[in-house]
Amino acid sequence: MSITTDDTISIERTAGLMTDYNKFFQPSSIVLLGASGDPRKWGWRILRNIISGGFSGNIYPINPQRDEILGRKVYKRVSDLPETPDLAVIVVPTAGIVEAIQDCVDRGIKAGVVITAGFAEIGEKGVALQAEMVNVARKGGMRLIGPNCLGISSPSHRLFAQMPSVHPPSGSIAVVSQSGNVGATIVRRAMTLNLGISRLISTGNEADLHIEDFLEYLGRDELTRVILSYVEGFQDGRAFFEVARDVSKRKPIVMIKVGETEAGASAARSHTAALSGSDRVFEGVCRQAGIIRVHNMRELVNTGCAFLCNPVPKGRRVGITTFGGGWGVLAADACAKLGLEVVKLDKAVIEELDSFLPSWWSRNNPVDLVSGTLVENNVNHIIEVLAKYNKTDGVICLGLPFPALERAPKPLTDEDKLKRRQLVIAHYQNVFRKIKSISEKYQKPIIVSAELFAPRQYVEEQDILSAITEVNSMCYNLPDEAAMVMHGLATYGEFLRKIS
Amino acid sequence: MSITTDDTISIERTAGLMTDYNKFFQPSSIVLLGASGDPRKWGWRILRNIISGGFSGNIYPINPQRDEILGRKVYKRVSDLPETPDLAVIVVPTAGIVEAIQDCVDRGIKAGVVITAGFAEIGEKGVALQAEMVNVARKGGMRLIGPNCLGISSPSHRLFAQMPSVHPPSGSIAVVSQSGNVGATIVRRAMTLNLGISRLISTGNEADLHIEDFLEYLGRDELTRVILSYVEGFQDGRAFFEVARDVSKRKPIVMIKVGETEAGASAARSHTAALSGSDRVFEGVCRQAGIIRVHNMRELVNTGCAFLCNPVPKGRRVGITTFGGGWGVLAADACAKLGLEVVKLDKAVIEELDSFLPSWWSRNNPVDLVSGTLVENNVNHIIEVLAKYNKTDGVICLGLPFPALERAPKPLTDEDKLKRRQLVIAHYQNVFRKIKSISEKYQKPIIVSAELFAPRQYVEEQDILSAITEVNSMCYNLPDEAAMVMHGLATYGEFLRKIS
Repeated sequence: MSITTDDTISIERTAGLMTDYNKFFQPSSIVLLGASGDPRKWGWRILRNIISGGFSGNIYPINPQRDEILGRKVYKRVSDLPETPDLAVIVVPTAGIVEAIQDCVDRGIKAGVVITAGFAEIGEKGVALQAEMVNVARKGGMRLIGPNCLGISSPSHRLFAQMPSVHPPSGSIAVVSQSGNVGATIVRRAMTLNLGISRLISTGNEADLHIEDFLEYLGRDELTRVILSYVEGFQDGRAFFEVARDVSKRKPIVMIKVGETEAGASAARSHTAALSGSDRVFEGVCRQAGIIRVHNMRELVNTGCAFLCNPVPKGRRVGITTFGGGWGVLAADACAKLGLEVVKLDKAVIEELDSFLPSWWSRNNPVDLVSGTLVENNVNHIIEVLAKYNKTDGVICLGLPFPALERAPKPLTDEDKLKRRQLVIAHYQNVFRKIKSISEKYQKPIIVSAELFAPRQYVEEQDILSAITEVNSMCYNLPDEAAMVMHGLATYGEFLRKIS
Repeated sequence: MSITTDDTISIERTAGLMTDYNKFFQPSSIVLLGASGDPRKWGWRILRNIISGGFSGNIYPINPQRDEILGRKVYKRVSDLPETPDLAVIVVPTAGIVEAIQDCVDRGIKAGVVITAGFAEIGEKGVALQAEMVNVARKGGMRLIGPNCLGISSPSHRLFAQMPSVHPPSGSIAVVSQSGNVGATIVRRAMTLNLGISRLISTGNEADLHIEDFLEYLGRDELTRVILSYVEGFQDGRAFFEVARDVSKRKPIVMIKVGETEAGASAARSHTAALSGSDRVFEGVCRQAGIIRVHNMRELVNTGCAFLCNPVPKGRRVGITTFGGGWGVLAADACAKLGLEVVKLDKAVIEELDSFLPSWWSRNNPVDLVSGTLVENNVNHIIEVLAKYNKTDGVICLGLPFPALERAPKPLTDEDKLKRRQLVIAHYQNVFRKIKSISEKYQKPIIVSAELFAPRQYVEEQDILSAITEVNSMCYNLPDEAAMVMHGLATYGEFLRKIS
């Protein structure tokens, strides 16, 4: 993959064809080629997902043998349809794929998602079939997503043309993944935090449209604020680089790139026929294109969400406050390993902290409260001192004050439980609202990692976490996760400063 | 820290003193010096934790100003006690600490836990006070845990002489931590999985008894099967090395060692006055002493638990099965980065898998089922083929079959919910029982990472995870976590082979 400073995006890469992404992501009608009456088949499940997802336009299942599936009228051929659908979703077996695409082209359809597998990823024969399919589509001015993909979704449009029956709410996180199951996992992880999705794009073998085409689209897409991506390889490394660098100017791209090792690269070849390329070169691409590279799905979602609720920091200098020493040491180590600077505290800062902290605090960064003094005003006050300090670019806060609850009455009635649940949730929402106001005042990110007080008899941790995202905040699990997130934000900040 | 091949454990390191650990962990009576009537103080909270933890022996709170606290008779001085308690728990302020220890010595007490902070971690004055305190204790034949620690617990004995009010069930995981709050976090993480603890030891500044003393004790302790440890530094590196190597022969030690960076080392110095030492030397110590080193609390608990429910593998060769390509690629990459070999499949193995897998499977390791064919018999069959294969030492299984539930009735009654909850839980327990039987048959670890089917209207994921540990199994979250756990098991296996 060559690195270039040329900013123009090549047009030839799209074979001279325009792509109308609205036909993919905001279609007014869908045809499903390969619809099935058998609930064990994807041709049935995908139809069910489209219907149960609440798609409001016309849905046309195609199946020569059936008149009706899931209460919908079935058509024998694409040519029988009363209108030209915007989007074709294709699950016919490989043997019938070329004919299916030809039918779509003949009907004037411009956008197709090929879910069927058994193409380039299975070897030579598949490569040839895939090429033939693309050839037919392109000749007819039709663009394809896939094959060997899970489908696409666009929750704001109630479009769920996909294999998994998961219907996330609409939001600002785009997921573009060369693996369908990784894409789905990312969506589910976001959903457990009550976070919404703008688009899910499972790109599969990328026979026609490539990862860079989708990045270009998502860069322009008004619903999308952050792009989470899983990539196994690039068919046109230069085009990818140019697009990614351009998109990164407007919104962050957080990416897992696998195939770092020969074992991973070999697995990727059998998966989507992807050629992983040199990992060292890819590291260089990330640096120059502003891509925030992460290494697993937790880091991907953690980092992506951080961009939704934090300002981008102006540097890599961090102040840390912790309710206990060990957590602080873990965070300091993790920060330093990631190239974040755990800054020394000036005398004036120490004096300001001294004015309200108990005598035994650490007088060092991390500011260690030593268990027992974790009251809300303390924490906010320390955060504010560290955020105000002109030698920090961001603050990591480890540990939060627990809600003050009276001793639980016995027996605990349902009403008691509900009341206590509401108290706990309101407590955490308030804590995060205050932290957010400090973050906004000083325009520095404040990343929180804490164990939450969640007695299961009246509140689940997951509900607290969701309540926290409702006030546009995030709470992470471990001190090193907070450091990793701060590193992601800082890496993007460096890119923005470099290009400005 | 020097590396030696001498197997003898130095006796001088204990200052010629014997330590009766039963007095610490199975005391028949406890005296609490610094008991308080003020619920905001640790002297009150620790007493409450001891009482509410269900300690069955005599409890003697000491406080010159009070007659009764929490319904317990309070004594003015240690000399007033009707018997010599086995264990002294000490929370008096630093100003009174030497006198308190002297009182204990005079009364013949042999075991003390000093929770009070403000010693070596605060500088020169604290160093001197700490030395004086130890001197008084040792002269009187009394051994000390701490100071600046969170306390100890021994759930089988209903002993919770500690700051946090967390009462884990009795089990076989020992936690020995130089950070109290990290120790407590580890215990809570284990508890959310319904896993029990044998001992929690918060070692603090280690003024008298050191990390290696506790390792030696836990190595002999029959309740303990695996030791999880958080360490900031060593006062006697050679002694630590010798003890660790000896204990590792009998049970695995999984350890976080911080202070890898200057920022972390500096934070550790203010925390427990620990000197972190060279990280490269420590890596060598781990290799030679069989310590499994991990880098965060999730890895620590994940790896520790794996030892409780898996045989130790005979090598680093791994077979992987996955329900979808991306997860498989992530696992393959993670394995290779950790030095695990993702073995090539022999022709005979491919033929055996061909005999029952659908035509489109990957014919490669990872064995990729490609979504849609994840039925229970398939998964077990693949796992068995991979476990039987003479070129694997362990199997990683990514993804599990979901429970087959009928469409939810509307409205869903409480009885329906309960029934469905039980079905889901029984399904997963069964899946893991079968996997365990394959693991036992071939004496190879089988590590599972999967998204679980947990519709929150009738079952929480946490309840499924707990149910899985009930059948002595574990389910991890991410593919790279499974690889990390396998790496931990294999690292220990290498040590055992080397010393045998």
